[in-house]
Amino acid sequence: MPQFDLVIRHGTLATAADVFAADLGIVDGKIAAIGSHLAAGRREIDASGRLVLPGGVDGHCHFDQPTSDGSVMADDFYTGSRSAACGGTTTIIPFACQFRGQSLRAAVEDYHNRARGRSFIDYAFHLIISDPTEQLVGQDLPALIRDGYTSFKIYMTYDDMKLNDRQVLDLLTVARRDGAMAMIHAENSDFIGWLTDRLLASGHAEPHYHAASRPMAVEREATHRAITMAELADVPILIVHVSGREAVEQIHWAQGRGLKIFAETCPQYMVLTEADLHGHGFEGAKCICSPPPRDKANQAAIWDGLAGGVFHIVSSDHAAFRYADPKGKMVRGEKAPFNWVPNGIPGVETRLPILFSEGVGKGRISLSRFVELAATNPAKMYGLYPRKGTLAIGADADIVVFDPDRKVTITNALLHHNVDYTPYEGLEVTGWPQTVLSRGDILVDAGSFVAAEGRGQFLHCDKPALARPRAAA
Amino acid sequence: MPQFDLVIRHGTLATAADVFAADLGIVDGKIAAIGSHLAAGRREIDASGRLVLPGGVDGHCHFDQPTSDGSVMADDFYTGSRSAACGGTTTIIPFACQFRGQSLRAAVEDYHNRARGRSFIDYAFHLIISDPTEQLVGQDLPALIRDGYTSFKIYMTYDDMKLNDRQVLDLLTVARRDGAMAMIHAENSDFIGWLTDRLLASGHAEPHYHAASRPMAVEREATHRAITMAELADVPILIVHVSGREAVEQIHWAQGRGLKIFAETCPQYMVLTEADLHGHGFEGAKCICSPPPRDKANQAAIWDGLAGGVFHIVSSDHAAFRYADPKGKMVRGEKAPFNWVPNGIPGVETRLPILFSEGVGKGRISLSRFVELAATNPAKMYGLYPRKGTLAIGADADIVVFDPDRKVTITNALLHHNVDYTPYEGLEVTGWPQTVLSRGDILVDAGSFVAAEGRGQFLHCDKPALARPRAAA
Amino acid sequence: MPQFDLVIRHGTLATAADVFAADLGIVDGKIAAIGSHLAAGRREIDASGRLVLPGGVDGHCHFDQPTSDGSVMADDFYTGSRSAACGGTTTIIPFACQFRGQSLRAAVEDYHNRARGRSFIDYAFHLIISDPTEQLVGQDLPALIRDGYTSFKIYMTYDDMKLNDRQVLDLLTVARRDGAMAMIHAENSDFIGWLTDRLLASGHAEPHYHAASRPMAVEREATHRAITMAELADVPILIVHVSGREAVEQIHWAQGRGLKIFAETCPQYMVLTEADLHGHGFEGAKCICSPPPRDKANQAAIWDGLAGGVFHIVSSDHAAFRYADPKGKMVRGEKAPFNWVPNGIPGVETRLPILFSEGVGKGRISLSRFVELAATNPAKMYGLYPRKGTLAIGADADIVVFDPDRKVTITNALLHHNVDYTPYEGLEVTGWPQTVLSRGDILVDAGSFVAAEGRGQFLHCDKPALARPRAAA
Amino acid sequence: MPQFDLVIRHGTLATAADVFAADLGIVDGKIAAIGSHLAAGRREIDASGRLVLPGGVDGHCHFDQPTSDGSVMADDFYTGSRSAACGGTTTIIPFACQFRGQSLRAAVEDYHNRARGRSFIDYAFHLIISDPTEQLVGQDLPALIRDGYTSFKIYMTYDDMKLNDRQVLDLLTVARRDGAMAMIHAENSDFIGWLTDRLLASGHAEPHYHAASRPMAVEREATHRAITMAELADVPILIVHVSGREAVEQIHWAQGRGLKIFAETCPQYMVLTEADLHGHGFEGAKCICSPPPRDKANQAAIWDGLAGGVFHIVSSDHAAFRYADPKGKMVRGEKAPFNWVPNGIPGVETRLPILFSEGVGKGRISLSRFVELAATNPAKMYGLYPRKGTLAIGADADIVVFDPDRKVTITNALLHHNVDYTPYEGLEVTGWPQTVLSRGDILVDAGSFVAAEGRGQFLHCDKPALARPRAAA
Repeated sequence: MPQFDLVIRHGTLATAADVFAADLGIVDGKIAAIGSHLAAGRREIDASGRLVLPGGVDGHCHFDQPTSDGSVMADDFYTGSRSAACGGTTTIIPFACQFRGQSLRAAVEDYHNRARGRSFIDYAFHLIISDPTEQLVGQDLPALIRDGYTSFKIYMTYDDMKLNDRQVLDLLTVARRDGAMAMIHAENSDFIGWLTDRLLASGHAEPHYHAASRPMAVEREATHRAITMAELADVPILIVHVSGREAVEQIHWAQGRGLKIFAETCPQYMVLTEADLHGHGFEGAKCICSPPPRDKANQAAIWDGLAGGVFHIVSSDHAAFRYADPKGKMVRGEKAPFNWVPNGIPGVETRLPILFSEGVGKGRISLSRFVELAATNPAKMYGLYPRKGTLAIGADADIVVFDPDRKVTITNALLHHNVDYTPYEGLEVTGWPQTVLSRGDILVDAGSFVAAEGRGQFLHCDKPALARPRAAA
Repeated sequence: MPQFDLVIRHGTLATAADVFAADLGIVDGKIAAIGSHLAAGRREIDASGRLVLPGGVDGHCHFDQPTSDGSVMADDFYTGSRSAACGGTTTIIPFACQFRGQSLRAAVEDYHNRARGRSFIDYAFHLIISDPTEQLVGQDLPALIRDGYTSFKIYMTYDDMKLNDRQVLDLLTVARRDGAMAMIHAENSDFIGWLTDRLLASGHAEPHYHAASRPMAVEREATHRAITMAELADVPILIVHVSGREAVEQIHWAQGRGLKIFAETCPQYMVLTEADLHGHGFEGAKCICSPPPRDKANQAAIWDGLAGGVFHIVSSDHAAFRYADPKGKMVRGEKAPFNWVPNGIPGVETRLPILFSEGVGKGRISLSRFVELAATNPAKMYGLYPRKGTLAIGADADIVVFDPDRKVTITNALLHHNVDYTPYEGLEVTGWPQTVLSRGDILVDAGSFVAAEGRGQFLHCDKPALARPRAAA
Repeated sequence: MPQFDLVIRHGTLATAADVFAADLGIVDGKIAAIGSHLAAGRREIDASGRLVLPGGVDGHCHFDQPTSDGSVMADDFYTGSRSAACGGTTTIIPFACQFRGQSLRAAVEDYHNRARGRSFIDYAFHLIISDPTEQLVGQDLPALIRDGYTSFKIYMTYDDMKLNDRQVLDLLTVARRDGAMAMIHAENSDFIGWLTDRLLASGHAEPHYHAASRPMAVEREATHRAITMAELADVPILIVHVSGREAVEQIHWAQGRGLKIFAETCPQYMVLTEADLHGHGFEGAKCICSPPPRDKANQAAIWDGLAGGVFHIVSSDHAAFRYADPKGKMVRGEKAPFNWVPNGIPGVETRLPILFSEGVGKGRISLSRFVELAATNPAKMYGLYPRKGTLAIGADADIVVFDPDRKVTITNALLHHNVDYTPYEGLEVTGWPQTVLSRGDILVDAGSFVAAEGRGQFLHCDKPALARPRAAA
Repeated sequence: MPQFDLVIRHGTLATAADVFAADLGIVDGKIAAIGSHLAAGRREIDASGRLVLPGGVDGHCHFDQPTSDGSVMADDFYTGSRSAACGGTTTIIPFACQFRGQSLRAAVEDYHNRARGRSFIDYAFHLIISDPTEQLVGQDLPALIRDGYTSFKIYMTYDDMKLNDRQVLDLLTVARRDGAMAMIHAENSDFIGWLTDRLLASGHAEPHYHAASRPMAVEREATHRAITMAELADVPILIVHVSGREAVEQIHWAQGRGLKIFAETCPQYMVLTEADLHGHGFEGAKCICSPPPRDKANQAAIWDGLAGGVFHIVSSDHAAFRYADPKGKMVRGEKAPFNWVPNGIPGVETRLPILFSEGVGKGRISLSRFVELAATNPAKMYGLYPRKGTLAIGADADIVVFDPDRKVTITNALLHHNVDYTPYEGLEVTGWPQTVLSRGDILVDAGSFVAAEGRGQFLHCDKPALARPRAAA
């Protein structure tokens, strides 16, 4: 065995299954050994009293994604990946989004241009398919899947991206045949439109009416429909950003029938509520995201699903827009009705601390479950495992030395994104990344960001094993 | 780092979370390192093309347990642990069973006398509590929990062991306060008695009427009741040997409500059916166990629960009685009515091969899920983790080198228990243990049993983290 | 057609299906004709602006029932039937309660002695079986069923009456074979005992802890168990006095599986809550009944079940004890712990007004549904139909002329029971009986009670059609 | 009281609540009296040994409805109403179907032209809305509701009629505000199209593939979506022609949540199965209807829903096309793929006998439940009650004297529709109408059809009480 480039010593290692004390040795950017009393490395990190975790994999974040309403996302690959790294996330999978009329390949090429040489950490691409032409379904998508773009997102709402049920079924058929993972944003577009018009017609335009325009039933219905499509096409799907009880119940029902329905939730559904959409003047717009945060009872349902097995991954759904910015939340002005406000909130940097503090710290989930939700399962879900998402021999040395005892009050000043606010301002958490490695390179050193720009590499994804159809009973 | 006593080289390691190629080095009976290109060991095993798995933990098996009907269990610690080891299981947790009128401590001492110096592998004890006196509840049980007997079984049926609901609640209160795991055999005793008498009164006494005397509703009701008691006492429980859909549905319902209800199933509910209780003459008695095997549709429900998250562990419930033996199935004669036949079947040796072949081999569960169900979760469930149940630095080197490609037709001649039959006679499986280690000692060497009698050690169990009450939402 | 003895003219008649304007003619105490422009009667009642309803059938009330704790029920057949009649109820079915050791026939004879010559209205008997000996199951009960005692009640709690599951199954077997209706009080006795002891051990003895000693889960579990027993015995049952959501859900689940599970609720679960168990000093004891009143959300679940089809009958469960009385609620003194307080509240007189006002008046149920729940279904449930419970040719002329617009504030002074309080003191209702007839005799004449003592007759019940096992699908 | 025009004597009358022996007197086409020993009428019918029932109300049948594929419905108002009357149905509610581009009022006028002077029995119109323009939603539909067209049907499938979710919500808003009943055909159009294309692409075009193109999940999804829309719009709906378990489960779930979701099923889902779509050559086309018949297990679920409370009405969904006819099932030729075959089967005449024989005769439902499902509830559902659908004073004398003992083997020769087949050929039933009256006129006299053409009157419907939004809990 060659000499270790780096040894992380005396830490408590955690994987999605195990927690144990050991040293960890790195050679050529990969994990080469885990053991007690490993030989000396060229460099050493003392992780006494610290957790040694696989770097987070954020399977749902939006950076530099073109929009159609004049707004501009606050974070690009540079600021976004910086923020991610500082929060302990070492792999991001943002979205190459097809515009209608655009070829999927062109969308991918454009997105590579946005990413190339900018990211501090490794990244893969999901595809967003908004125009499933025959050419796309028959040729382009299968080719891209072969090329390592093995997951795609389907929107059931948003006028510029939504697909009808038949298009969804056609895409799920491709997913089944070619081994891709389909992610579904499940909200019923017609319902939202109808409710929105009624609210606006009644003069209810303030930001907080965003929640009333997308009640739980809107999400529940689309969830049921998505599940049925997965059943008809006989292929697993992932329901993204599940926000509360009624959607959880549909997924739990489907899982009980033996269907492979995977589910994602996000920190906003654990700690925010609809009340956060209220605020002085337009301030509520800061928390406009879809689905909207619900209430305490729905938070409890989310935690139950995290503690149990309903959920498989926790992502940030980072989709940041600056608040006091004509290219941000105020793109249509500070008095714009809620439905003109860009949807999305920042969260890539706070994802791990919030999940750790609220989950592990408060005894709701185990440390291994934390690792599973935040790193291992996202890597498995999207064909990056075992290269990413775990501490295993041969895996990339993407590692977080995490201080479980550090108390932090989240403020925007602390964060490294390019946003002028955080929805979690004032939230106290216990636990924060101390040192972050990517392929053995130190990106964050005892809290200081020291990474080299553009060092992040594009990751071709394998066909995820989780996307395989259910075995015959 | 000292020299390795043994290195297992070139294998594919699997934990409950990860699968990766690596060498594994053992020092002083413990796993000391996992890495690529480990230094040479004093001894080496070439595991090329093989899986390197944590040894199985069988959390539910009965060896040399005294009975009250004149029957004698076929396997004691000697033959039982031999059979276990040959099947890839390196930890067993049989039951120290209290007789009514007996002190719990006396039951434990008696069981130690039966075990001492006899087992080839390490073992812990569950307690069976049949007489929860005030002394037991207030003093003896808490003391034994402190001493490392941190799990106990509660029977809701069987005249000589069953507890009433109030006694169950009292014991769950102890489990909650003192951190023990309660295992519950959930069948309604009154229902069984009533159905049995009706069957016998109608002249239906043959072995296969055993199934009719314990239909799914008998198990479903007791499962619901057990869940309710866990809810009232606010403590996790484990429902053992779940056999089919209606019980699965109750557990799934409870899990959906956020309750920490754990569940176990066994190979007999995956591959046997009620039809196996039919047979020439008395032959059906070979498959009499409780709950009884169900049908194909119920098997499918069990597999769905294994593929999903309903189940947490797979055990054998090995409770073997020789068939053509006046101390076995025929203790009351070959024409005895079904309800006089000792309940239980052998299975400690076939547990891993059947679960691997039917589960992993047929694509129903992943390899990591196999490890989780068969080794890691049982160890976690009963406070033996991380000493047992995984491949982690510092863990006991209880390891199975498993040949995933070996095809075996199960016959009783192949097995190492002291039983004159196997219910799985003729079943073809793919995958079989090749080499089995316990604390670094080779017990099975390329298929040959080479272990030293009595080398197994008694294991004091920690208070299992899984037994902690649900966190407030 | 002979001349009518009495014609009720110009009213709005309501049955469980229909509402229409018509005259109603009575001959010889029976309904002889319904029509427009009926010929003149010897006597006439002008029911313009009034509803003409079948007299209420209270299928669950306790009068002069011996108790084992020294308490004495406040109402006997004299005061109880008077109160019933004044509230619009013309048939009562109290309980002939077997003491352990007593023959069932003796209990019936004793109860006849208590009833004979005392009741103002017709009455039948349910049986309460507390000691199901072989003689009772094999001989006495079948004989009594043949004699017109075609319903019996089973207690799953109360030490002096509760039966174990096997006894319940034996009795359900009789119900199935002989065509009787089994009523089940579904609360888990062991759970209550365990909870009660914990509460008392913590010094929680005040009346309102009664609710904490019997939470929803106590009722839910017993409901599930009762349903399972009905399923095993393949016979319909009636779950009495269902109090809230979790029990409703079990019944709804069973009904969805095609089981004939009938359900009863009572006004106390519609308008009282646990808060009514609080009060100055011992006052909360006035509302101690089992199951206890729950909360607003559970009331809503009850109303949903009434508006939908979950419930079949509404009864009073009148079981009255005087409050400031050493033979009543204070039998063990004013400081007695909650579990020493006699269980039960008065309600036979307020049942119809509350259900009408809160149900029909507030638009939750239709007038026909009111009739169905309060009169027709109870008569059908217990084999009194079509003699009682409806307005049909040949039926007994048990009729209420009901003023739907009369506003009444319920006070105890208004009522005709022998109780020193009503739990509904101060409740405002709209709708009250104006004139009440039994077999054509006027009992209440424009609000004045004018009935002759002892005119009520004992009713032999038919085997209820509703008790027939479910047809094969 | 004037002399009776007709007295039906000595029969057993049945309403949705009651069954009792009585005479029934008719004056001026209305029920004037029900009583024992009624005075003599000008004409008398001896109904000894017979049931006297309200005439059936068929709330779902298609007569002379224009189609868009060149096919012509086999039955118009003349033959359709004749067939209905001969089967005991005295009120029909076919559909005035709007073509896209056509005004709703024009559709109604056209349909009046088709009906005028042709029907033997009274009739009302449902509306079918296929083009919900602003004019329609804002003006035409509210006006028609005021004019007595108080129910309308919404299609979620069929290209020429289907509405999108937003259009459905807009129409439900009208239903809520103006008090109309919305009927929903719940199948997912996209799913059907996708499945159909896959089947055809695989060469699966025979009639029986119709079933595979519309599996249970297609109906379940749309049912869930329809329920959600009713929930959002806060208005009751009726789900028509429910065919099996998964749809029943959705409805039962919604009812359990307190939503006013009404449900209809049809005889084809009680006695036909998918097997009936198989047959020599094209014969299976005779049973093509949507949703398709399912299997025995689904029939059992339908019966459970009829015996319990899930279903509210039973209709025929009579939509007849001649089989060997270029304007019928063979409009696209005898080798046309299944999706080109006109959907629908005859059944208006066999509805009551099948429901009676299979339901009442086999002990699955009571006689009153039969009346409720077949007559009373349809009348209530559509604002025709109490004029139609029951035996009540003042109601139209639409009456069936029904022979409960007559055994009939259904053959097409026996029936009075204009179709060359019946899907029930060879089905044996017990019970058949003997004499049928409409407004006191005898239409069928001891089995002979004697009605005068065109005597049927158009019925303006009231706003149905059942369409009222759920009361606040």
